[in-house]
Amino acid sequence: MIENRLYNFNPGPAVLPEDVLLEARANLLNYRGSGIGIMEMSHRSKDFEAIISEAEADLRALLGIPEEYSVLFTTGGGSTQFSMVPMNLLRPNTTANFILTGVWAEAAYEEAKKFGRTHVAATSKEEKYRRIPTECLLSENCAYLHFTSNNTIVGSQFRTEPACDAPELVCDASSDFLSRRIDVRKYGLIYSGAQKNFGPAGVTLVIMKTALLERCPDSLPLMLDYRTYAKNKSLYNTPPVFAIYVCGLVFRWLRQRGGLDVIEKQNRQKADILYTLLDSTKFYEPFVSPESRSTMNVTFRISNRELEQPFLKEAEAAGLIGLKGHRLLGGLRASIYNACPLEGVEALAAFMREFEKKRG
Amino acid sequence: MIENRLYNFNPGPAVLPEDVLLEARANLLNYRGSGIGIMEMSHRSKDFEAIISEAEADLRALLGIPEEYSVLFTTGGGSTQFSMVPMNLLRPNTTANFILTGVWAEAAYEEAKKFGRTHVAATSKEEKYRRIPTECLLSENCAYLHFTSNNTIVGSQFRTEPACDAPELVCDASSDFLSRRIDVRKYGLIYSGAQKNFGPAGVTLVIMKTALLERCPDSLPLMLDYRTYAKNKSLYNTPPVFAIYVCGLVFRWLRQRGGLDVIEKQNRQKADILYTLLDSTKFYEPFVSPESRSTMNVTFRISNRELEQPFLKEAEAAGLIGLKGHRLLGGLRASIYNACPLEGVEALAAFMREFEKKRG
Repeated sequence: MIENRLYNFNPGPAVLPEDVLLEARANLLNYRGSGIGIMEMSHRSKDFEAIISEAEADLRALLGIPEEYSVLFTTGGGSTQFSMVPMNLLRPNTTANFILTGVWAEAAYEEAKKFGRTHVAATSKEEKYRRIPTECLLSENCAYLHFTSNNTIVGSQFRTEPACDAPELVCDASSDFLSRRIDVRKYGLIYSGAQKNFGPAGVTLVIMKTALLERCPDSLPLMLDYRTYAKNKSLYNTPPVFAIYVCGLVFRWLRQRGGLDVIEKQNRQKADILYTLLDSTKFYEPFVSPESRSTMNVTFRISNRELEQPFLKEAEAAGLIGLKGHRLLGGLRASIYNACPLEGVEALAAFMREFEKKRG
Repeated sequence: MIENRLYNFNPGPAVLPEDVLLEARANLLNYRGSGIGIMEMSHRSKDFEAIISEAEADLRALLGIPEEYSVLFTTGGGSTQFSMVPMNLLRPNTTANFILTGVWAEAAYEEAKKFGRTHVAATSKEEKYRRIPTECLLSENCAYLHFTSNNTIVGSQFRTEPACDAPELVCDASSDFLSRRIDVRKYGLIYSGAQKNFGPAGVTLVIMKTALLERCPDSLPLMLDYRTYAKNKSLYNTPPVFAIYVCGLVFRWLRQRGGLDVIEKQNRQKADILYTLLDSTKFYEPFVSPESRSTMNVTFRISNRELEQPFLKEAEAAGLIGLKGHRLLGGLRASIYNACPLEGVEALAAFMREFEKKRG
């Protein structure tokens, strides 16, 4: 770590790659010698056109996004997508299907009810969302099946896409987007806020089959209509220029590091360090069933709950921050997104072993 | 200017105060010694709570916003407000009234038609929007009167609020917000994207009479419902952390410079330099009638249109950039927002006199 930075395990907004931060910093007052800063340029300028085009091209290369898919840079976070997906894709007489795996999946489901028919195809709520459901039962006239690929709060993750014949898969990938390779062809639409795994808060990426735009009804609020973004290359109005710029830097950083296969291996390695430790002792208690555990958010408790506050305090003193669990779940959570370095995870594991030795 | 920066007359995203950029840069990797960068902190952290609270407090102090008004940090730009205002405030059997003074006012009017009854209370379209209408005729059951206080494209500006008895005034202040003192009590709702006069693209400020929240119907898309922001202090979901931080720095910068009365005087002075020059010769042609001219966007042509391209080229070579007029209007435009220094305007005026001397 440079410049007295600490290891940051925040769940989002989260740690960004230092190379990216350094480059953004170098361009804040004067973008590549243009004489104006990156935040001060017109979104219609040649410089910004190059930034957004390169960001899209790098993203397409990273994920292998087929030509027949559109890439949209929107705003408003996942919560805005909770409305946009049904408003754009749910036709009368069809039903939006949901797999409930946590609070955000529930929120997407509740929001969709405002706009049409809904159905719960699978849920693990009764098991406190400790596992990802393995079976799912679609409704008649299913428009699409919505699932949350990674659940930040409980710390669970789909290993692969849900096994069922939904006509379209819609995925909220807000907390594991670009953490591993996926086959975009399996999806109708994927959305993700940037602030966990690939950028600052303020931009939400949507990747969708362009053909699905035909479903969008007229008279939607302009900025909630996917066509507004698709037809104008996300430049109908002023987009979040700086946030898109930083995302572009992250995409390039990922390519330079070897792409998603390399990153996925590193993420697996980081997660394994923590889960192996958690499974090796009764002092700590991992929250999620082994087969459903997230590589992004590692949730656990200390068997003696009274040690959780001292754990957080001592971890912070040791330069390990952001380890508090979500207020709805309590306990502890290490968010170890792409930009969290292996050394950070090793430092956390060493601290955890030391803490157990002292207090166990 | 520092670090080889040029004078930036972009219409938005636009120039930001150098003090603000320097402070943002200093905190990009390590926010005030916290060990993590400003983009990497949780929106639920103590640090960010302080940032957003101080931003709101500074804004309230600057504008004298009464307690009975809410301050909301939203996203999606003015175009999203074009939908949100009628969706939230227009009840059945009431009519949204509009003053049309340019392209953005028209866009707000067209969008509102999707959500209820509309009426044009005044327009200067037949005069190519060269002036602000002085009279306006409200419909029956007027819900609110919407106007655009400054028109970036044509370069016109309301001197004061429209003179009529609208039950509520709604103002799109996206291009002159915080350029001068206004009496917030005269307004029902004011909105403004940040990227022209007070921050980077990616955050849209809304100031509204809290009592108007009672009009919001249920079943709006969650993130298009003003109550979602008002009830959660703009923290229902992850807000654009960095953009809000920079806006907060600008608010503090404005206060340190003496507040809106001082800024207004400086803006008047800068605009006068350019309009006096434009009126003193037939070589240049100001676009807008004298009584309706904007202090923010000074639009003009060169009588010999063929000299406009050379003007832009030579201006750029002289370190004066962003002077091209909007594609819909053509010609030239100098956007001289709060952060555009007096020296920049003086340099532009000197260049214009020199150019006339050489080519006139």
